[in-house]
Amino acid sequence: MSDEKRERKPALLSDRFNTLRYDRERDAVVVLDRRVYPFETRYERCETVERVAWTIEEMVVQGGPPLAYVAGLGLALAAHQCAGRHVAEQRNELEQAAMRLVRTRPTADDLHWLMERALGVGLKALEMDEPPFEKILQYVESEIARGNEVSRATGQHAATLIETGDKILTHCFAGAALNYMLFYAQEAGKEFELIASETRPYLQGARLTASQAVEMGIPVTVITDGMAAHLMHEGNITTYVTAADRIALDGSICNKVGTFEHAIAAHYHRLPFYVLGYDGPDRSTPTGAAIPIEERSAREVLMLGGKRVAVEGAQARYPAFDVTPPSLVTRIITERGIFKPSEMAAYWE
Amino acid sequence: MSDEKRERKPALLSDRFNTLRYDRERDAVVVLDRRVYPFETRYERCETVERVAWTIEEMVVQGGPPLAYVAGLGLALAAHQCAGRHVAEQRNELEQAAMRLVRTRPTADDLHWLMERALGVGLKALEMDEPPFEKILQYVESEIARGNEVSRATGQHAATLIETGDKILTHCFAGAALNYMLFYAQEAGKEFELIASETRPYLQGARLTASQAVEMGIPVTVITDGMAAHLMHEGNITTYVTAADRIALDGSICNKVGTFEHAIAAHYHRLPFYVLGYDGPDRSTPTGAAIPIEERSAREVLMLGGKRVAVEGAQARYPAFDVTPPSLVTRIITERGIFKPSEMAAYWE
Repeated sequence: MSDEKRERKPALLSDRFNTLRYDRERDAVVVLDRRVYPFETRYERCETVERVAWTIEEMVVQGGPPLAYVAGLGLALAAHQCAGRHVAEQRNELEQAAMRLVRTRPTADDLHWLMERALGVGLKALEMDEPPFEKILQYVESEIARGNEVSRATGQHAATLIETGDKILTHCFAGAALNYMLFYAQEAGKEFELIASETRPYLQGARLTASQAVEMGIPVTVITDGMAAHLMHEGNITTYVTAADRIALDGSICNKVGTFEHAIAAHYHRLPFYVLGYDGPDRSTPTGAAIPIEERSAREVLMLGGKRVAVEGAQARYPAFDVTPPSLVTRIITERGIFKPSEMAAYWE
Repeated sequence: MSDEKRERKPALLSDRFNTLRYDRERDAVVVLDRRVYPFETRYERCETVERVAWTIEEMVVQGGPPLAYVAGLGLALAAHQCAGRHVAEQRNELEQAAMRLVRTRPTADDLHWLMERALGVGLKALEMDEPPFEKILQYVESEIARGNEVSRATGQHAATLIETGDKILTHCFAGAALNYMLFYAQEAGKEFELIASETRPYLQGARLTASQAVEMGIPVTVITDGMAAHLMHEGNITTYVTAADRIALDGSICNKVGTFEHAIAAHYHRLPFYVLGYDGPDRSTPTGAAIPIEERSAREVLMLGGKRVAVEGAQARYPAFDVTPPSLVTRIITERGIFKPSEMAAYWE
């Protein structure tokens, strides 16, 4: 193609099928290992439900929708493995697998509703005397395709908020919608740069976000999580964009721990705080206080590159998420458009 | 001793002579390597001024007063090495060494005034036909002893602000005054705990602060720098205590980057923000805006445990300090007592 602009495309993590899929030939769930990406492009091949659950718990896969999809594919795997057995036994196996997969991580809502529906699809197939495997897999793959479209639409709306000269701070990896936002803003000829906060302890910002920006030719600067307020004071951040693992109906947003601290700093500096809200708030979560915050192992904070960072005798904590109240949120961008946090209450009406 | 309480003592880093000194037998400046402490207790032995400068630049030594003392001992070393030469040559050597040592780090004020005075002492000795080495060393050692007393007095005043049940967040390593604060609060029978933010990229909080607390038997929990606001929201932080590399006469405080972000979060949660101010504001710094912020190598953010954290093509920044304005500071505690930031202007009158 002669038009250089038209050769641009969103980076690898934009399309979820690049990072997770069901391998029909070998009956396995295949998942990009986001703990080592982009330094290694290694895929974890899961041949048991327990291994699928492990990839979610150990953060081989990361981000609300992707981990939900992996769990859904895990349920398809369970269905495959018990196919042909007695119906009551298959039902039992599916219910057990769904319970195991839901138990992996409590905070993001996607996992919970996707598993409920995928299990429903499987149980209904059993009732109709159809093999549940194909039905569950079809359902989950259609959800992945829908999720790709939700990401694209969300990113397209969000891109309208970006202006030439913007210096956009983002925390953790805000997922495919971030890639699409950057892509569409670039397509529109806007020139801007990204600041990625590294996001301890897993460094998703330094690893994933920065790699996506570099792949798309967008200037990106990595900072440690504590530097954001200083860069805001300098005038080197104009805009904050992040995602949400769950949005409550009161407009609170729950995201990777560190987001709340940045939101307070953005508010103090009167900077806009935008949230990529994908397919909107969770219908069953009235307020931010109702969101369970996953407490992960202290070891993940105490160990760095295989070495301890603090002496024996020191404790640590790792709340994996925090909740930012609606008063600190400027806009929530979903596949349907751009909303004020106060509009989340009526989103599903 | 039978009284268990009386056996308590402040931890290793409370006494600066434990961590830096002039070795008269081998004529070298000996410095505890704070980059690896507490996992290794390794001393760097510097036999040249250039090596002394290197220990400061590479953060073998850390903290405003300690690095100033090391520089001062470096000037004594320079004096020793040119002793006996022509007076004009000695003068020149001392001036060159002082310039080299001052150039190492721009932000903390201690280095600048200590080096100016140490050089003055050396040049005066030359004028009086006395050997500058002894005079400079005596002066610097008296400053170290005075610094120990400043730390003790500051910590003793600060301890009066601590109450039983407090959960004290502290960033980086606030130095000997922090140890003394903990010590005196403990001596007074107060029960409290410490939360140490790890302080990327150098992890002084996880390494140094946590080790001091463990050594003193104080419960300590390490968190990543972005978790502070979440713990404040939970009610798991009641008090913030940090130090300052420089205090301006307008009551602004400059400290390790990340402090400002925490100060904003503490203010948002209406928590007291205390600053250990040691010997008070810098006479020649009218406002926070006048403080030069050291910009260190991007490499220190991009590399972690010898590995890159972000792909090639990603940039990084490392402003080593930030400035917290007086409106966010509750009290500044110095050797003389407890002050409001607005009282800094008249501190030296």
